[in-house]
Amino acid sequence: MPDILHKVGIKSSSPNAVYRALTTLDGLSAWWTTNTQGESKVGSVLQFRFGDGGFDMKVLELDPARRVLWQVVDGPEEWIGTKISFDIAQRSDWTIVLFKHAGWKEPVEFMHHCSTKWGVFLLSLKALLETGKGSPWPNDLKLDSWE
Amino acid sequence: MPDILHKVGIKSSSPNAVYRALTTLDGLSAWWTTNTQGESKVGSVLQFRFGDGGFDMKVLELDPARRVLWQVVDGPEEWIGTKISFDIAQRSDWTIVLFKHAGWKEPVEFMHHCSTKWGVFLLSLKALLETGKGSPWPNDLKLDSWE
Repeated sequence: MPDILHKVGIKSSSPNAVYRALTTLDGLSAWWTTNTQGESKVGSVLQFRFGDGGFDMKVLELDPARRVLWQVVDGPEEWIGTKISFDIAQRSDWTIVLFKHAGWKEPVEFMHHCSTKWGVFLLSLKALLETGKGSPWPNDLKLDSWE
Repeated sequence: MPDILHKVGIKSSSPNAVYRALTTLDGLSAWWTTNTQGESKVGSVLQFRFGDGGFDMKVLELDPARRVLWQVVDGPEEWIGTKISFDIAQRSDWTIVLFKHAGWKEPVEFMHHCSTKWGVFLLSLKALLETGKGSPWPNDLKLDSWE
C-alpha cells in the first residue's frame, strides 16, 4: 500500500517543543487547523475541522519527545483506517520530524493532493517552531480547487 | 515500490505555459535549479546541479502541454533508474500538475526528505507561473542539514 512520506528539520528547537506542537490543542491549532478539538490522550479522539469537512483521529501512541501515532476514525472515505505518525529526533542543531501517512488503498489523485498539502502543513509546523508563527487553516496556502 | 506523489494547481496559467516551464532551460532554471544544462529533447540528457551534487535526467517522453517523463541516469544511488513524470491538465481556471517520482527501492529517510523537497520545488513552479518569480536553488527553502 502506498504511503505519504515527509521529513522536515526544525532549527533551534527541541524534541519537547515539537512534541508539544503535536500533542496539545494550542500547538495543533497553530500549524494545522485553528479548529482543533478533543483530547490528546491515548484512546481519545481529536477533531480537526476545515470548514465543513475534516478528520477525526484516535490517538494510538504518545511517546513524549519521540513519537505520535494517530488513526483516522472519521473523514473522507480514502482516509478512514489510515495511520499518521510523527517520529521526532534531535541531530546536532536540527530537530528532525519523519512523517508517514500510511495505509492508502490506491494512489488516487486525492492522495497526490494530500501529499503536497501535508508538506505545506509540515512547513507551517516548521515555521511555527522557528518563528513563532505557523499558517494553519484557514490561512494555509491553497493548492487547487480542493484547497 | 513506493512512489513520491504530489499535485499542485496553478491559477490563471495554461498547460502550454506549465509545459514550457518543464521543458526549457529558462523555465527549469527558474523553479528548480539555476544551474540547469543540457537539452530537453527525447533521448537527450538534462543536467541539474545543486552545488557539488545533482541529477542527470534522460528525457523519455515529451507530449506538448500534457506530459513530461524523465529517467535518472546519474545522481545519488537511490535515484538512479527512478522515473519522474509530470502530467498536466486544465480544469476550469486551474492548471493541474500531477507529479510522480516512481521506482524507489525502499522508503528510506532520504525518500522522506526528497518528498518534502519536491513539494517545495513544485510550490516554486506554482509561484513562478502565478507571480513570475520562483525560488530555484540556491534560493530554495532549506529543510534540514541535507538542504
